[in-house]
Amino acid sequence: MLEELKAAVLEANLALHRSGLAPETWGNVSGVDRDKAVVAIKPSGVPYPELTAEKIVLVDLEGKVVEGDLNPSSDTETHLEIYRAFESVGGITHTHSPAATAFAQARLPLPCLGTTHADHFDGPVPLARLLTADETAEDYERNVGRVIVETFVRGKLDPARMPAVLCAGHGPFTWGKDAAESVKNARVLELCAAMARDALLLEARAAAGLEIPTYLRRKHFDRKHGPGAYYGQ
Amino acid sequence: MLEELKAAVLEANLALHRSGLAPETWGNVSGVDRDKAVVAIKPSGVPYPELTAEKIVLVDLEGKVVEGDLNPSSDTETHLEIYRAFESVGGITHTHSPAATAFAQARLPLPCLGTTHADHFDGPVPLARLLTADETAEDYERNVGRVIVETFVRGKLDPARMPAVLCAGHGPFTWGKDAAESVKNARVLELCAAMARDALLLEARAAAGLEIPTYLRRKHFDRKHGPGAYYGQ
Amino acid sequence: MLEELKAAVLEANLALHRSGLAPETWGNVSGVDRDKAVVAIKPSGVPYPELTAEKIVLVDLEGKVVEGDLNPSSDTETHLEIYRAFESVGGITHTHSPAATAFAQARLPLPCLGTTHADHFDGPVPLARLLTADETAEDYERNVGRVIVETFVRGKLDPARMPAVLCAGHGPFTWGKDAAESVKNARVLELCAAMARDALLLEARAAAGLEIPTYLRRKHFDRKHGPGAYYGQ
Amino acid sequence: MLEELKAAVLEANLALHRSGLAPETWGNVSGVDRDKAVVAIKPSGVPYPELTAEKIVLVDLEGKVVEGDLNPSSDTETHLEIYRAFESVGGITHTHSPAATAFAQARLPLPCLGTTHADHFDGPVPLARLLTADETAEDYERNVGRVIVETFVRGKLDPARMPAVLCAGHGPFTWGKDAAESVKNARVLELCAAMARDALLLEARAAAGLEIPTYLRRKHFDRKHGPGAYYGQ
Repeated sequence: MLEELKAAVLEANLALHRSGLAPETWGNVSGVDRDKAVVAIKPSGVPYPELTAEKIVLVDLEGKVVEGDLNPSSDTETHLEIYRAFESVGGITHTHSPAATAFAQARLPLPCLGTTHADHFDGPVPLARLLTADETAEDYERNVGRVIVETFVRGKLDPARMPAVLCAGHGPFTWGKDAAESVKNARVLELCAAMARDALLLEARAAAGLEIPTYLRRKHFDRKHGPGAYYGQ
Repeated sequence: MLEELKAAVLEANLALHRSGLAPETWGNVSGVDRDKAVVAIKPSGVPYPELTAEKIVLVDLEGKVVEGDLNPSSDTETHLEIYRAFESVGGITHTHSPAATAFAQARLPLPCLGTTHADHFDGPVPLARLLTADETAEDYERNVGRVIVETFVRGKLDPARMPAVLCAGHGPFTWGKDAAESVKNARVLELCAAMARDALLLEARAAAGLEIPTYLRRKHFDRKHGPGAYYGQ
Repeated sequence: MLEELKAAVLEANLALHRSGLAPETWGNVSGVDRDKAVVAIKPSGVPYPELTAEKIVLVDLEGKVVEGDLNPSSDTETHLEIYRAFESVGGITHTHSPAATAFAQARLPLPCLGTTHADHFDGPVPLARLLTADETAEDYERNVGRVIVETFVRGKLDPARMPAVLCAGHGPFTWGKDAAESVKNARVLELCAAMARDALLLEARAAAGLEIPTYLRRKHFDRKHGPGAYYGQ
Repeated sequence: MLEELKAAVLEANLALHRSGLAPETWGNVSGVDRDKAVVAIKPSGVPYPELTAEKIVLVDLEGKVVEGDLNPSSDTETHLEIYRAFESVGGITHTHSPAATAFAQARLPLPCLGTTHADHFDGPVPLARLLTADETAEDYERNVGRVIVETFVRGKLDPARMPAVLCAGHGPFTWGKDAAESVKNARVLELCAAMARDALLLEARAAAGLEIPTYLRRKHFDRKHGPGAYYGQ
């Protein structure tokens, strides 16, 4: 059943693999059919090159497997919590992409430092708090989802305008209208995080002390571009 | 019309794509025919692999489409403002390349820290200020261009010797005698920005405390290079 | 003899080469047959593309060559010390992978800043101390192994739950149930080290001063996503 | 004449290109025949993919072209100064590789922070000072070489044990027994510089505040490795 959805979720998982943002078997993508209330998700522990549409697992919104011989991703309960709470979400991606995870590990929301970010996310990407010991001990993966939802409810955030979250000490989840868009948002989030990281590291570094002398700067520019240029001609 | 210009602008957009400096559909390249006063520019929202010469849009210097079925890049008004003000410019590239954008987001001009930079840019690459709320509300893309031009006029900069600008909180624009050269300058700017970033981060870090002891350093050098060398032989 | 082990060690060395974590001829992988008490290891100084199963050297646990025409890796004595002390270890990898080596050179254990790390290593990856001048002068490579073992004994660490160590001023060793798993752990260690490095650099950087104004952020989001969106359509 | 030398210098220039350390047309490699006192060097401004053995230029040690239709690299005078002063040098490479150049731009020698460095360089890689205005105005490229030589004479350094230098505000030169080895040393220098950069940035960053709680760390390790492991099975 739902062959189109499975094919789309397969292709989205392969796109995630090609992006390099999910090394080893880390990361997973799912998609939902809202009419049938069924989620298609990557099976657990299968290397990306061995994925096929038949191996994509179908579960209902309570997590019961409705088709598939393999176990669904161990993160399935997190995905389901998001689907249950955010009706606009059609696909979800989880990665440990390095720059976004660096912010999650530094326990910082991703600030909006530029228009690249503003083109895609309506404000700082929020940080979901660390889970408590009790939340970790029992129902861990579902509680990861609950804390994500709590973050949006408390922050009065609209998941359709903020398709990403950073889980403290963990990494990012992104979503979109379908599985493919959630992968695209994972790529965009990583690019924005890398640029924000470098901007924050550069902040307030005065350059004056290291600028090369004007005579050297002019020499180099003029030997290529001035009258009588002789460099690389 | 202008088949050669369209072919050159197509090739320059593809070169930008191959450079990796314009992920997703971010970034665009244009070129101008000064005699005909016509600009060829990437259409809006078309993925690079689907670009063809037929899809390149021709507009006059006021922005009226003179050939092409697609919308010109949303940044067209910024390009036009630069073409109108800087007569020496034959091609323009806009990217969100990560290191250059990090400086733009840190709201720092790119200082000239070395001869690589001096080979290409006659001084620090200037920072164009953030737009005001009014400049953002109306005529936004054209005002981006106006603030770039203002930066050069106030700074008494020659766009032929300084073929780049960093827009605060946004990213770089570069230009050149034609579309291909503007893409080359985008690549050079990114390399210079990455090296300047790392130089600024290293500044004033004393190394003494971390140097390995002389006996260990000598052991490693000598087991490969000394008398009786035995490592990796 | 031990054709299967040699083939596995060859493949693990080639996997290390493909990972990019062992540039030039740096790095080596070994595997052990516990029943026969024989270790298969990369020969010294052979470029990875020229490796074949026949060139893999077999040594006993005292380091005597039992098969092979080439010299075993110069790091063989370090591997043997680990095999003798840690009975659960079936394969060992040594690299100079850049992020893990940066921690080793900064003389810092790799702290557990996130769940990616926690998925693979049961605590901070320990730092083995610098060798003394005497330990360096004589029996150097064996003493590298002794200091690794000392680190685990003193720290009461279980090598089966902590399959990695950082040697101060040097680089990482990783291990696993076989050669392939030790290479996988080398890759995972590098990814965790890179993310920890960036998280530590970001720590405590407040972002407020660099956030772009709300009007600019909203403009960019809305021209793509708001009513009347016109960007990249 | 000297077909073998020209072939070796061609191949070394192509190896430099493949290494990615010489983007655009930046960088050049030469080799010397000490018996004939002739240097083979890359021509000026030729893109790497268009290089052939015929295009390699032969010059004598005073810089007179003895074979070739193209101009020798603009950096030829720097190479010649090194060949004249350092008799053990058989090949020279100049790059603007990013991490080594970051140290040069930060005006820092490259400290020896680890055994990777110690395997190849017998001490910190020295920093050659900025040229004066007079040295820049006249005979610039030759003076770059003179300041390199001065650095080694004053520092009592042996170019056979220290096959690299960082020119302040400029970038690295490396050398070796032949052209190929000088390129290898350029690659090794870049790798050491990148690891030293990250080690210096990490220095003194305490990690305690960011470590994830033990309960979370144990949960992640145990759900993959503990009794009843269920993650990624």
